[in-house]
Amino acid sequence: MNFKMIKYVIGWLLIIVSILMIIPIICAIICGEDTIISFLIAGIITASLGTLLRLKKPENMTMYSKEGLILVAIGWILISLFSSLPFIISGAIKSPVDAIFETVSGLTTTGSSILTEIESLPKSILLWRSFTHWIGGMGILVFVLAIVPLSGGSNMNIMKAESPGPQVGKLRPKVQSTAKRLYIMYMAMTFTEIIVLLIMRMPIFDAICISFGTAGTGGFGIRNDSCASYTSLQQVTIAVFMLLFGVNFNVYSLIWGKKIKEAIKSEELRNYFTIILIAVIAIFIDIMGRYKNPLFGLRDAFFTVSSIITTTGFGTADFDLWPEFAKAIIVTIMFVGACAGSTGGGIKVSRIVIMLKTVVKEVHSFLYPKNIEKIRYEGKVVEHNVLRSINVFLMTYILVFILSFFIVSINDFSFEGNFSAVTAALNNIGPGLAEVGPTKNFSEYSDVSKIVLIIDMLAGRLELFPIIMLFLPKSWKKF
Amino acid sequence: MNFKMIKYVIGWLLIIVSILMIIPIICAIICGEDTIISFLIAGIITASLGTLLRLKKPENMTMYSKEGLILVAIGWILISLFSSLPFIISGAIKSPVDAIFETVSGLTTTGSSILTEIESLPKSILLWRSFTHWIGGMGILVFVLAIVPLSGGSNMNIMKAESPGPQVGKLRPKVQSTAKRLYIMYMAMTFTEIIVLLIMRMPIFDAICISFGTAGTGGFGIRNDSCASYTSLQQVTIAVFMLLFGVNFNVYSLIWGKKIKEAIKSEELRNYFTIILIAVIAIFIDIMGRYKNPLFGLRDAFFTVSSIITTTGFGTADFDLWPEFAKAIIVTIMFVGACAGSTGGGIKVSRIVIMLKTVVKEVHSFLYPKNIEKIRYEGKVVEHNVLRSINVFLMTYILVFILSFFIVSINDFSFEGNFSAVTAALNNIGPGLAEVGPTKNFSEYSDVSKIVLIIDMLAGRLELFPIIMLFLPKSWKKF
Repeated sequence: MNFKMIKYVIGWLLIIVSILMIIPIICAIICGEDTIISFLIAGIITASLGTLLRLKKPENMTMYSKEGLILVAIGWILISLFSSLPFIISGAIKSPVDAIFETVSGLTTTGSSILTEIESLPKSILLWRSFTHWIGGMGILVFVLAIVPLSGGSNMNIMKAESPGPQVGKLRPKVQSTAKRLYIMYMAMTFTEIIVLLIMRMPIFDAICISFGTAGTGGFGIRNDSCASYTSLQQVTIAVFMLLFGVNFNVYSLIWGKKIKEAIKSEELRNYFTIILIAVIAIFIDIMGRYKNPLFGLRDAFFTVSSIITTTGFGTADFDLWPEFAKAIIVTIMFVGACAGSTGGGIKVSRIVIMLKTVVKEVHSFLYPKNIEKIRYEGKVVEHNVLRSINVFLMTYILVFILSFFIVSINDFSFEGNFSAVTAALNNIGPGLAEVGPTKNFSEYSDVSKIVLIIDMLAGRLELFPIIMLFLPKSWKKF
Repeated sequence: MNFKMIKYVIGWLLIIVSILMIIPIICAIICGEDTIISFLIAGIITASLGTLLRLKKPENMTMYSKEGLILVAIGWILISLFSSLPFIISGAIKSPVDAIFETVSGLTTTGSSILTEIESLPKSILLWRSFTHWIGGMGILVFVLAIVPLSGGSNMNIMKAESPGPQVGKLRPKVQSTAKRLYIMYMAMTFTEIIVLLIMRMPIFDAICISFGTAGTGGFGIRNDSCASYTSLQQVTIAVFMLLFGVNFNVYSLIWGKKIKEAIKSEELRNYFTIILIAVIAIFIDIMGRYKNPLFGLRDAFFTVSSIITTTGFGTADFDLWPEFAKAIIVTIMFVGACAGSTGGGIKVSRIVIMLKTVVKEVHSFLYPKNIEKIRYEGKVVEHNVLRSINVFLMTYILVFILSFFIVSINDFSFEGNFSAVTAALNNIGPGLAEVGPTKNFSEYSDVSKIVLIIDMLAGRLELFPIIMLFLPKSWKKF
């Protein structure tokens, strides 16, 4: 295990985190808030440790996939701890477990909150909270890759470990330029959303924070009612951008490369929008009777589906009060999640579709035992090892889910509450149902449950294996 | 497709069903009940159609695996319809959908009921209801195999399609003698349970019905409180026998062949009892505070775990009122189910353990990418195609679960009720939670939901694929 290299990259990570804290500091200066000192202290602590860690550049710069996984896991945990410092030092969140919960929820783009009262918090704190979504959305290690020169293979292994989805698809050979391109697109889209929201007459502070939350598919609101008090036009705009950030960034990369035809042909893209269409229509039919003006029902159905399938978690309506059929659809799309290679969480559309294709293929093989059918996705044969890794992912996912559900159940909330809390954490969504529904929050859970949910959020964001490896004694053996 | 052969075997099936109706007729004579005429009518209708269907012995007696699946699916549906006739004709259950629900629940050894008042029913009807568990438990087609001479390959394909579990294991080469041996062990164990319960001073009618329900891991009680009013000693006896019927019958076959050592070595057997031990202890610790005498808590925990993991569904305590942690364990072991090759339902212990081994193997492969690790079970390497079929099974299972959950959710019962209703049906357990908890029943669901649950029960009993094939247009093409 190349520990020196892990140490070095983590040093870089912490320095970047401390630099990113300049943004809330600027906000604090503009708004004249006294949180400036908290951010300064947090930034100095983080920067000092970072400098210490990257003091000695390792001779051997190569990393294998195992080291990539361990680096990503430890990196994310450390970033979470140091990013929570401003909340703790400023006193905005008193309990350290709560502060870490809120930060992990931010960085993993979950958006579950333990805060009961948001609007009274200092603006710089709110901005930092929403900004963690933006940082975590595209992945902070991808950011490191974009600016730190590492040898080719190492880059690849880090990127694989951090980016969500069954395979890194059409990864361009030069990882560094891919990472740069990803961040440029990410920034451009975030900026576009801010502009559009400003045109829709949203206050600038709201526009920035909401756009950070949309871009990372995070879901922290800055109002107590999340997005319910924005105008319909603003809500629809947010919903559209949520969907856009749930699209595989390879599609945008293709558009950038002027391969529009190839981009539109993307099977995952079409599956994704088909699922959304069906879900919106089904929910709309189920809830329309409750609205005087059915258009508002359609708006709420569209917003909720966008928010849930992309695992963002913004809310305009309390779907916990909707009929059970609509709730069943919502819970299901919680698991489906967004496209692979997007900022969204969940199991991912491509994995789900490949699973369905496997089932159909199996039944056909009973009918025509002599035909050897191959599963195709995106026009290509899905290789055996991809299928295998999807199967293993599903099993691991179920296993982590059940274990977490056990421990969280000790809290004795309702079945629905516990089930949806784990679902929301593991899929990085945010709100669940019942005790953790859209109008409620996670503050009532015990610290033990919160720690389990923190682990689940990290496991969900990093697609399980990096976090699971930390718990295996074998990972820590020298060899 | 060899439709002539399917017709012929189904003819045999119906004749056997009509012969089995002699047992409730004897009961009706002894008890002097007027249901005798209902059973006679039902028996004559069934026997006539059966004779008609098997009039012409087909020249080509071979069946391929596809025909095995279709035969098992159609066979089970027809047996269900004809076995429900006594309920409908006698007026014991008025709605035909309810009568079919109750019969399918019986034959699939689910034990979910739509009846609100049981004790006032005629004894012969109750006996027939419990007897369906016994018939369905070992499989009525296995019974046909034991008495009808078919060519070797055909037997095998039918047996494969009907018996539960990932593989038919150490199937002895002669299918007919295996089928006979299975039924002899099954009858001997049922008889033993009746004798032991009589020694424990249970009334003879109760002892017979409860033993039928235990043997098939069904769970229809003949008292409104299921098993709560039996003595502790009787309850523990029932619990022990439930566990015994949840064991892979290969183990008993080994004991019969005096290979005791091999029998004890069975990995699935040890996994099964380990899960039970952990579940009982965990639930006991969680609920013991609610009992004045902790021994009663231990008894209820043991009985409930036995009843749920074997998917029987008898009840002594209303576990819907237990703390959420205990309920989480109960819901989990609902999915785990009993051993493969037993009369129990669920996903099966061996499938679960192989899945876990796959996950561990995968994580190890990150650590030692060059090591090629093989998954072993029962001391043998698990072949690739077994792993694949387990994966496909899991995916299909999830798919059927979600689709059913959607449709059942239209009823607008609670999340917990709908979720556990589908769980209970698909795993052939019986009681769920909330609206379908141990002290409640399925009568309030709409006919649409009941039909979905009927399909789920059949799909669960036949391990999904036979029933799914019926819904595929391709299965009905001539080729």
